[in-house]
Amino acid sequence: MPAVDVAGEFETIRRLFAPLAHLEWGRGLADDVAVVPSRQGHDLVLTKDAIVEGVHFLPTDPLDTVARKLMRVNLSDLAAKGAEPFGYLLACHWSPRCGWPERMTFADGLRADQKAFGVALLGGDTVNTPGPASFSMTLLGWIPKGRTVGRGGARPGDLVFVTGAIGDGWLGLEGVQGRLSLEAERIGALSDHYRTPTPRVDFALPIRDLASAAIDVSDGLIADLEHLAEASGARVEIDLETVPLSAAGQAWFDGRVDEQAALEKLVTGGDDYEIAFTASARDEAALRREADRRHLRLTRIGRVTAGQGVVARFGGQPVTFVRPGFTHR
Amino acid sequence: MPAVDVAGEFETIRRLFAPLAHLEWGRGLADDVAVVPSRQGHDLVLTKDAIVEGVHFLPTDPLDTVARKLMRVNLSDLAAKGAEPFGYLLACHWSPRCGWPERMTFADGLRADQKAFGVALLGGDTVNTPGPASFSMTLLGWIPKGRTVGRGGARPGDLVFVTGAIGDGWLGLEGVQGRLSLEAERIGALSDHYRTPTPRVDFALPIRDLASAAIDVSDGLIADLEHLAEASGARVEIDLETVPLSAAGQAWFDGRVDEQAALEKLVTGGDDYEIAFTASARDEAALRREADRRHLRLTRIGRVTAGQGVVARFGGQPVTFVRPGFTHR
Repeated sequence: MPAVDVAGEFETIRRLFAPLAHLEWGRGLADDVAVVPSRQGHDLVLTKDAIVEGVHFLPTDPLDTVARKLMRVNLSDLAAKGAEPFGYLLACHWSPRCGWPERMTFADGLRADQKAFGVALLGGDTVNTPGPASFSMTLLGWIPKGRTVGRGGARPGDLVFVTGAIGDGWLGLEGVQGRLSLEAERIGALSDHYRTPTPRVDFALPIRDLASAAIDVSDGLIADLEHLAEASGARVEIDLETVPLSAAGQAWFDGRVDEQAALEKLVTGGDDYEIAFTASARDEAALRREADRRHLRLTRIGRVTAGQGVVARFGGQPVTFVRPGFTHR
Repeated sequence: MPAVDVAGEFETIRRLFAPLAHLEWGRGLADDVAVVPSRQGHDLVLTKDAIVEGVHFLPTDPLDTVARKLMRVNLSDLAAKGAEPFGYLLACHWSPRCGWPERMTFADGLRADQKAFGVALLGGDTVNTPGPASFSMTLLGWIPKGRTVGRGGARPGDLVFVTGAIGDGWLGLEGVQGRLSLEAERIGALSDHYRTPTPRVDFALPIRDLASAAIDVSDGLIADLEHLAEASGARVEIDLETVPLSAAGQAWFDGRVDEQAALEKLVTGGDDYEIAFTASARDEAALRREADRRHLRLTRIGRVTAGQGVVARFGGQPVTFVRPGFTHR
């Protein structure tokens, strides 16, 4: 494509992105393409997410956290499939507010997370837009041939688990918008989770080896379990009281009068980037060992039965949700 | 990522994009990821381009041609490397003007070009933006291991070639903006080239086997040859009189008083999506056979010498360009 960038497409690539490129495969970001050797006995796993200012992130969000969130939501997709990420391509649609300092901040965020998660930039494009900034990333990973964990493998009798804590994504969005009355430290922790969630990359291997079906919790726990149930042709039953909350989430929850309504917010809010998955009961002990080894909280929240859809119970009674997941405006 | 689409992210994916997905690798676009088997003995070649309404395409452009242009500019990148495309991921950032009819038109364009070029949709994302529409595509291809043609392989003594005709991209942009005084049929041909250029996908194999260096002409012939010269550490010398023009381009050129100024416009205008490449003189006959077999025009426009940069001559005299390539506002 032609150069399109008032701040200089070539300059942006050369100064900010070339230092992030994979030394061999990225070809110095100077050749229109990336070239990656095939990995024998493996499948290539790809995902691509896009984010838009004012829709997926706030105009006031620092761009390093925007870059890191973009990478992390993609990493979360791969982790839930059991795949090992190695590289990414990036399209930056810079808005007029994205001058050099903002672009450098964005690149700083990428650099930090490349190091944290062991991936490298392979290529992409940088263009200007008169509208709000937006970004998209294509993340690539490998997995041994045929071992990708889908959404469709849950069978009656399997147990349902979730990593980490649920609800911090929604609470974090409330927090950054100033709608939470909690201690500043709690709000800080929740806001951090919203801006830079922790994808469960280091739990990908146990997922690959032990999960029958898996999905990352991005639309909301209930909505994502509905996707899993539909793909599996089975019913997922969960007990809302067992859904794990973070310390900050618990503090918020403890201040609610209507516990059921509060839980409903947390399990339909989205942006958690935990992994919800099913596994055979005989693998529960092995899963707990793998989680303990990684100091990762792992919670059993339900079971798979014959039927369809998701049944969520509170106090033993099924709960009906107005909307199972989060939809941006 | 959470659902973000007033017209329905899930509906858009299910009704418009799922029918375009690779039957096996795309997983029905229902699993966050695509899974592609490795191809033994091959390298994966990737490219990613982004386009923005009002910058790379006009707000009045029909969305089927926007989709096709996006695919074609990516295909052009791969063709110039000698790679064989197989699939793509797509991010659609829909603007408020993109309702169902517009989205269907966009999908129609994809469908037509998938069939024409033998590629399939693997995955991606669809989001809404309050700003102008934009799109990005990651295109994937295979090439036998180590055979990717770079920009850096030109050696003194090599000849310089270009496929097709140069200048129709720039003339086409003038045409769609109503700035050309030519017969309607000519303007139509040029506008068509601007909206749906022809990537030289079917010349990728000869490029792979016979070119020493190659680049697709997107920024402008001179600018792209400068990239090639710089990467090769050599000088590229061309004779402007030998640069091939289309019938419409020739008709426009014949109406100019200042021939040199006219040629300068054509070789710096960009958006041609032809392949400029270098090859050993002993391979010229084989290249011509391969081009003839494909009914593709192939023109020798110069030679590689020791030195650096691009020297373009007109009437035997070196020409200095104010700007070697096209930059969007």
